[in-house]
Amino acid sequence: MSFLKNCWYVAAWSSEVSENPVCQTIIGQPVLLYRGEKGQVIALGDTCPHRFAPLHLGKVFGDQIQCPYHGLRFGADGKCAHNPFDPQVKPAAASVNSYPIVESDTFIWIWMGEPEKADATSIPDFHWLNDTDGYTMTAESHLILPVNYELIIDNLLDLSHGQFLHPATLGNEAMTGGSTKTVQTGTQVNSYRWNPDGEIPTIFALANLYDAGTKVDFWNDMRWNAPSSYFLEVGVTPTGEPRDNGFHLGSAHMLTPIDETHTIYRYRLFRNFARENAEYTAGIETVVRKAFTEEDEPMLVQVQARMRGRDFWSLKPVSLKGDKAAILARRIMDKLLAEQDA
Amino acid sequence: MSFLKNCWYVAAWSSEVSENPVCQTIIGQPVLLYRGEKGQVIALGDTCPHRFAPLHLGKVFGDQIQCPYHGLRFGADGKCAHNPFDPQVKPAAASVNSYPIVESDTFIWIWMGEPEKADATSIPDFHWLNDTDGYTMTAESHLILPVNYELIIDNLLDLSHGQFLHPATLGNEAMTGGSTKTVQTGTQVNSYRWNPDGEIPTIFALANLYDAGTKVDFWNDMRWNAPSSYFLEVGVTPTGEPRDNGFHLGSAHMLTPIDETHTIYRYRLFRNFARENAEYTAGIETVVRKAFTEEDEPMLVQVQARMRGRDFWSLKPVSLKGDKAAILARRIMDKLLAEQDA
Amino acid sequence: MSFLKNCWYVAAWSSEVSENPVCQTIIGQPVLLYRGEKGQVIALGDTCPHRFAPLHLGKVFGDQIQCPYHGLRFGADGKCAHNPFDPQVKPAAASVNSYPIVESDTFIWIWMGEPEKADATSIPDFHWLNDTDGYTMTAESHLILPVNYELIIDNLLDLSHGQFLHPATLGNEAMTGGSTKTVQTGTQVNSYRWNPDGEIPTIFALANLYDAGTKVDFWNDMRWNAPSSYFLEVGVTPTGEPRDNGFHLGSAHMLTPIDETHTIYRYRLFRNFARENAEYTAGIETVVRKAFTEEDEPMLVQVQARMRGRDFWSLKPVSLKGDKAAILARRIMDKLLAEQDA
Repeated sequence: MSFLKNCWYVAAWSSEVSENPVCQTIIGQPVLLYRGEKGQVIALGDTCPHRFAPLHLGKVFGDQIQCPYHGLRFGADGKCAHNPFDPQVKPAAASVNSYPIVESDTFIWIWMGEPEKADATSIPDFHWLNDTDGYTMTAESHLILPVNYELIIDNLLDLSHGQFLHPATLGNEAMTGGSTKTVQTGTQVNSYRWNPDGEIPTIFALANLYDAGTKVDFWNDMRWNAPSSYFLEVGVTPTGEPRDNGFHLGSAHMLTPIDETHTIYRYRLFRNFARENAEYTAGIETVVRKAFTEEDEPMLVQVQARMRGRDFWSLKPVSLKGDKAAILARRIMDKLLAEQDA
Repeated sequence: MSFLKNCWYVAAWSSEVSENPVCQTIIGQPVLLYRGEKGQVIALGDTCPHRFAPLHLGKVFGDQIQCPYHGLRFGADGKCAHNPFDPQVKPAAASVNSYPIVESDTFIWIWMGEPEKADATSIPDFHWLNDTDGYTMTAESHLILPVNYELIIDNLLDLSHGQFLHPATLGNEAMTGGSTKTVQTGTQVNSYRWNPDGEIPTIFALANLYDAGTKVDFWNDMRWNAPSSYFLEVGVTPTGEPRDNGFHLGSAHMLTPIDETHTIYRYRLFRNFARENAEYTAGIETVVRKAFTEEDEPMLVQVQARMRGRDFWSLKPVSLKGDKAAILARRIMDKLLAEQDA
Repeated sequence: MSFLKNCWYVAAWSSEVSENPVCQTIIGQPVLLYRGEKGQVIALGDTCPHRFAPLHLGKVFGDQIQCPYHGLRFGADGKCAHNPFDPQVKPAAASVNSYPIVESDTFIWIWMGEPEKADATSIPDFHWLNDTDGYTMTAESHLILPVNYELIIDNLLDLSHGQFLHPATLGNEAMTGGSTKTVQTGTQVNSYRWNPDGEIPTIFALANLYDAGTKVDFWNDMRWNAPSSYFLEVGVTPTGEPRDNGFHLGSAHMLTPIDETHTIYRYRLFRNFARENAEYTAGIETVVRKAFTEEDEPMLVQVQARMRGRDFWSLKPVSLKGDKAAILARRIMDKLLAEQDA
């Protein structure tokens, strides 16, 4: 299995990176992250080219990182900036990768492929996360899942599993009912579910937004961008009212592959209702975390074990009606990978 | 290494399977076991063909199992019985293996190969285990040994190791003395050891069956059936008396390969003497369990480690007089596997 | 990766081997070590050729070892000495390797290759370890490091890492200063560092050998012999005085590869100063152990992880001035291995 390189991954939440160097393995590459003198994020290959020590265990001097083993220093451009054994000699070979970085919408995005192809305009929009006036947010999460990232995307792009896997947490028959429309636009997939004139789904009912018995229109819209960014909005209005007046609960779900079988999962929920209700915030935070870590994660670990490292398609998976968005996403990734490796 | 498929393995003790689904990996295949509406044992492939979830984590509805991830249901024949996303469509590809099952002599036997070749008459006889009038039994055991099943068969088919490996438990010089006859009949090997006119072996002496100083004829008969069923009878009579009048301690030893390096070992002892002596029952249960788990198992774990995954014959093992039965069994298995893979 | 076989490794400290058999895996081979009737060290292959049991779990009878599984016995020459199943038959195939052994300078040296090529004159000299009249010693150490032995040799042959990796323990700018001369003689590398007229290095200052402010000449001489023996002497004299009158701290560092990623590290320090100062002995013992296990070992574990099993040269390491001795040692090993595998 290979990973897409010429694309943007989330390397970290902005809040995760400071002057103290940290290492984050992304698509199998150990990446060193720290902030330089002006607060800018610097992302370098984390392995010293001299004797292969992990640079993040070293010390930062301004924009430079010093290797913890023999003291070579590298600058923000990845080139050797100081050689303690021979200050006159800075071998050109003594350099590490320097990765393009963009900080936007509370994320640090990293470009893992050819730097000259990095195109900041292709970063998906998550402006809601900046809008603390408009939304109340749950905490920034950081889960390490021992699972391939594509299995998590399959899971997110077909929420109909909720009634079977999450009956006591997120599960909801409304999420499987109604009509669905799935649309591909370039390397983006959108899926829109529309469930008119029904009961208030539990997650909204808990906020006491309407009188008991009120019927609502319910929607469930998702957007996936290659390779691994996912946005979900679930929302309600009293039956027949315009969606713009509605209450909605958005969420960003960012998957960063560590390697073939491990993924960092960063997510955050934001909403435009029950905004001062701290108990509700804590409640949805708890239920979502429980659903991910106690229901989705163990299931995906088992699925991955059953696949025994074999390619998804080679297992001839049976595909059903609800799989449309996930299959589109897999086909897009297949195409992008084939182009990359051509 | 490959496993024999067109043959019967013990999938479980009858008592181990109920309406609650369980998974037992057999020769590398995860098998789902549960009882249907009429109490019949149903054995299916445990991996959902849709997104590879383990079915045994799902719920049983009558004879059907419902996948825990997206809710597909499968019947006793392994075919899709319900598709929640599209009740009209039950894709033919959405099916799992259904394994032939026979319940006999307290065991659930499973046929892992081509169902049409399953032949119940080839199941080895263990009728003694049904005969609670004629015999007193120890508990049904279930040990998971981190060892290849053939190493355990080598061990069982040459009990002469007892005096070296089990000096304080099962060890007995009588087990190496006397004369031995080994006979192959099809895919069965019998080995008969006859030790006339000697001391009472410890395991019988403990039951106080005879006056001190009585001399006995002692026998030690074993039967192995391909691939992995083993029956042992040790017995005594006062010197010269007919064997039919004797006391004997039988045992069934059933080995179910989980994979190349793990085996489930189910055994049970039964005897026609000291029948009401609960202390004796507990005593032999303890000593046998200790010998298996504290002496045989650690030795076989080390042997397997030393073999480092290499084929037995490729290591050019030196063979000695006591190895005749084990070598015959290995040759039979080699032949059956060669035929299967031809 | 392969190991050099026709050479001497340290199998153990002399004090580690007694009449009780022990197993030590050396370059991937399990070796059985015990002392025979006359106290001589016997080294045999530890795997029984019958059914692959580990012989060191058996019993010693005089010079013979008895297999713990089926009781075959082997003599000091590795040949079958007793077959309990058939005392007349001792199959020639039933034999294990017998390794040449030399006991010298407190070590048991083993020759892992062709016995007829074993040449005791090629064993490196460590006579200091016998000289308890001339030196005060720290304890014999025995560390199992989860690291390839060549990475440890790289580390030992370039002590300039001290100021970065061991700033609070062994680190010392004097160890990087001064002038260095590196010399290859056959399969031996010597490196001499000379640092005249400087401050007293910490490790000597702690012993209160001189008045405060005394200037000293400081040397740091190392010797490596293929494949993995290392001797280090650091010493001081008041500036300009002959080295023979000086104080020196010697150390022997013996690396025995267990396999590609594990090494036994035996070392011992000896000195001709502060000889009755038990507190100083304990102090340097503690600081050296801390530097090895809390600083070097974690670093080398990380370096090895970053190499991911790839060959050192294939990673195109950048080499710097301080690497000369380590590079010479690696080139010697490459040449010896190429000759062996030719």
